[in-house]
Amino acid sequence: MALAYLTRVERFNAAHKLWVHDWSDEKNFEVFGKCANKNWHGHNYTLLVTVKGEPDPITGFVMDAKKLSNIMREKVTEKLDHSNLNLDVDFIPKYLQATTENLTILIWKELEQSIRPYRLHCVKLVETENIYAEYYGE
Amino acid sequence: MALAYLTRVERFNAAHKLWVHDWSDEKNFEVFGKCANKNWHGHNYTLLVTVKGEPDPITGFVMDAKKLSNIMREKVTEKLDHSNLNLDVDFIPKYLQATTENLTILIWKELEQSIRPYRLHCVKLVETENIYAEYYGE
Amino acid sequence: MALAYLTRVERFNAAHKLWVHDWSDEKNFEVFGKCANKNWHGHNYTLLVTVKGEPDPITGFVMDAKKLSNIMREKVTEKLDHSNLNLDVDFIPKYLQATTENLTILIWKELEQSIRPYRLHCVKLVETENIYAEYYGE
Amino acid sequence: MALAYLTRVERFNAAHKLWVHDWSDEKNFEVFGKCANKNWHGHNYTLLVTVKGEPDPITGFVMDAKKLSNIMREKVTEKLDHSNLNLDVDFIPKYLQATTENLTILIWKELEQSIRPYRLHCVKLVETENIYAEYYGE
Amino acid sequence: MALAYLTRVERFNAAHKLWVHDWSDEKNFEVFGKCANKNWHGHNYTLLVTVKGEPDPITGFVMDAKKLSNIMREKVTEKLDHSNLNLDVDFIPKYLQATTENLTILIWKELEQSIRPYRLHCVKLVETENIYAEYYGE
Amino acid sequence: MALAYLTRVERFNAAHKLWVHDWSDEKNFEVFGKCANKNWHGHNYTLLVTVKGEPDPITGFVMDAKKLSNIMREKVTEKLDHSNLNLDVDFIPKYLQATTENLTILIWKELEQSIRPYRLHCVKLVETENIYAEYYGE
Repeated sequence: MALAYLTRVERFNAAHKLWVHDWSDEKNFEVFGKCANKNWHGHNYTLLVTVKGEPDPITGFVMDAKKLSNIMREKVTEKLDHSNLNLDVDFIPKYLQATTENLTILIWKELEQSIRPYRLHCVKLVETENIYAEYYGE
Repeated sequence: MALAYLTRVERFNAAHKLWVHDWSDEKNFEVFGKCANKNWHGHNYTLLVTVKGEPDPITGFVMDAKKLSNIMREKVTEKLDHSNLNLDVDFIPKYLQATTENLTILIWKELEQSIRPYRLHCVKLVETENIYAEYYGE
Repeated sequence: MALAYLTRVERFNAAHKLWVHDWSDEKNFEVFGKCANKNWHGHNYTLLVTVKGEPDPITGFVMDAKKLSNIMREKVTEKLDHSNLNLDVDFIPKYLQATTENLTILIWKELEQSIRPYRLHCVKLVETENIYAEYYGE
Repeated sequence: MALAYLTRVERFNAAHKLWVHDWSDEKNFEVFGKCANKNWHGHNYTLLVTVKGEPDPITGFVMDAKKLSNIMREKVTEKLDHSNLNLDVDFIPKYLQATTENLTILIWKELEQSIRPYRLHCVKLVETENIYAEYYGE
Repeated sequence: MALAYLTRVERFNAAHKLWVHDWSDEKNFEVFGKCANKNWHGHNYTLLVTVKGEPDPITGFVMDAKKLSNIMREKVTEKLDHSNLNLDVDFIPKYLQATTENLTILIWKELEQSIRPYRLHCVKLVETENIYAEYYGE
Repeated sequence: MALAYLTRVERFNAAHKLWVHDWSDEKNFEVFGKCANKNWHGHNYTLLVTVKGEPDPITGFVMDAKKLSNIMREKVTEKLDHSNLNLDVDFIPKYLQATTENLTILIWKELEQSIRPYRLHCVKLVETENIYAEYYGE
C-alpha cells in the first residue's frame, strides 16, 4: 500500500479588480494600489489540482488524469476562462474579493464533490510569475 | 567591428477584449469567440525589446540595459500595467483592436524615438504560453 | 503598412529512434548513441509556427490564431501526438531519420498549402530543454 | 537544530504505453485513450528527489548534491534515459502500468537504500507540462 | 474558516564559494569540487516565501503581497542582490558555508519577526535549474 | 535542398563585475550601479549556439548535436563554469568588460573554427530572466 499524489494543470485567462464597495475610492487605491484600476486588469492563471490515493493495481492511476482534467474544465476553467472574475462567474460571490487566496478556496468547494470518491489534496493557483496561493481544505 | 543584439524583458498585466463596434454581437462572437466577452478578460504579458549596435569599447554595452528598461517602463509598461488596453492607454487608438500583433507595432512607435541614437531591432510581445507576436519596423 | 509575425504554439508527445537500416548495429550505436535504442525512446515536443503579414485593419489579426491552431492540429499534431514517429505518421518517409531538423522541414511541407493565403515564415520544433531546430522554407 | 530539505533535479527521455494485457484492445483504448497506442509514445521526464536533514555544521550540506545526483543517475536515470519503460528497465515489473504515479513509487524503492543514512523525503516526477506525481514513502 | 497559503517570489544575483578555512586546499577541492574556485562563481537565485493564514474577510488577503514583497526586499534581497554572499552580507556568519540549505535557514531568521503577526510557513531558495532547498522553521 | 538551423543549449554559473580600471570608483558606480560591486556578483548563464546547414541525407543531422555539445563544453562552458569571468578565463581579455554582449562575440570566436566545416549562425547568451544578447558574426 502506497499513497501517491497526482497533479493536473489547467490554464485560464481572466480579468478582475480588487475593490471594496463600502470603501471610498481613496481607501481602495490606498489598500489595493493599481489592482483597484476601475477598468479592470487581467492575468494568465495556472491552476494545479492535486488528488491523493493509492494507484489502482490494474490501471496504475490514482485517478484518471483525463477525467480529472474534464472535471476541472467543466466545473472551473470553462467558467473562468476569458471571463471577468468579479462579474461573470456563478461561484464567486460579489461581496468576496477575487484574490488568489480566495479563488483557491472557492475552487476547492467547486471541485470537492465532483472529484469524489477520489480525495482532493490541494488547489494551487498561480496568478503571476511572482504570486501564487494554495489551499488544502483545512 | 561587431554587431550585437541586446534584449531586455519587462512584464505587465492587463485586461482587454476584441470587439468591432460596427459589427453585430453575433459577428463579433463568431469572429473573436470568447475573446469578445463583453466584460473583458486579461493576460500576463511579457514584452521583449531588442536593440542592435556595436558594444561600446569601454563599457561593453550595446546600450545600458538599465536605461533601456527605464524607457520601456516609462513609455510602455507603466501605462499598460494593470490597465484596460481598450480604455486606458493613450497610445492605443480606440478603433484598433488590441491584438498582440497590433500592440507590437504600437509599442515600436512609442519606443523608437526614445531609444535613439540606439537602433531598435525588434518588439516581441508574449500574450500566453501559446501566442506571441513580433515586429521589426518593416 | 507594417509587417508583423504571429507565432502559435502546440505540443505533442511521441516515440522515435534514430536508426539507419543499411548500417550495422555497431555503426548505428556508434553514430546515434542511446538514440538508437531498439525499443524506442520519446519526447515532449513543442511546435512553434510563425506566419507573417500585415495585421488586418479591422480584426487586427495577421491570421486568426485559432484558425492557425486548428490547421496545426489537423495537419500535424493530431497525427504526431502519442505516435511513433518512425512507424505511425503518413508524412514522415520511412527512409528519413526523424531528427528534429528533418521534422521541421516535413512539417513545413504539411502546413504551407493549408495556411495560404497567409505566409508561413518559420517552423520551430523543440525536442528537449537542450535541443531545437528551425526551418524557414529556404 | 534546523531541518532543511534539499531537492536535486535530473531528466530523462523515454517511451512507454499504457496497456493491460488481460483486457481487449477495445477496453484498453476506452480506458487509456491514445496512451494505449501500440507503437508507443514518449515523454521528456523531469525527476525531482528531495532529502531532509540538518545541514552539516561544517559543509552546510544536508547531503552533497553531487553525491545525490550520482545516486539518482546510477540507480534511476541512466536506466530510464532513452529507454522503453515497459520493456527495458529492470526495476519496472511487466505487470505494472508505467504511470507517473507508479514510477514515483518504484523510483523511491530504488533510491531509499542508496541514499541512507540520508533521509529520502519525496520523489516527484513531471511527465508533461500538465501532469506530475509525488510519493512521500507513506 | 479556511487556512490558505500565499507565496511571493523575489530574485537576486550573487557570487559565493564553498570553502572551509580550517581545511587544506586539497580537502576543499575534494569536498566542494569546482564550487571551491578561489575567485568565486555565482548564481541567479530565486527566493519563494510562503505565509499562511485565513484570508481577511474584507480584503481577501492572507497578507498584502506588496507588503510581503517589501519586507523580503528590505530584509533580504536588497542585501543579497549583486553581493558576494561570503563577504558582503551582515546576516551570513563568516564561519557558515553559504549553501542553499543554510541560506534558507538564515533568511527565515531575517524574515520571521518582520512578517509577524503573519505566520511564516516556508522559505524556498532555488540556486540553479537543478538544485533548491526549503526550510519550514522546524 | 533545405537549409535548417539546429540549436544546442549548455549552461554555466559564473561570477563577474563591471569595472573600468581607468575610471574613479564614483564613475564606475554611476555607470554600472550595483554591477560594479567590488566583491563580485554572479549569474546562471544559459548559452544557445545555432548552426545552419542542410540535414545530412542519411543521418538527418545538420550537425551531430552531441558533437556540438562537446565542442561547446570543451571550448567554452568548462572554462566558464564556476569561474570568475574577469579573472579566470583565457579568452576574455582583461581590458574588456564581461558584458553579455561582449561574451557572445568572444564565444563566437572560440567556437567558429572548431565547428567548421559546419556553419555557425548565432551565439545567444541569457544572463538573467530579463537580459540576453545575440551575435551573428556580422
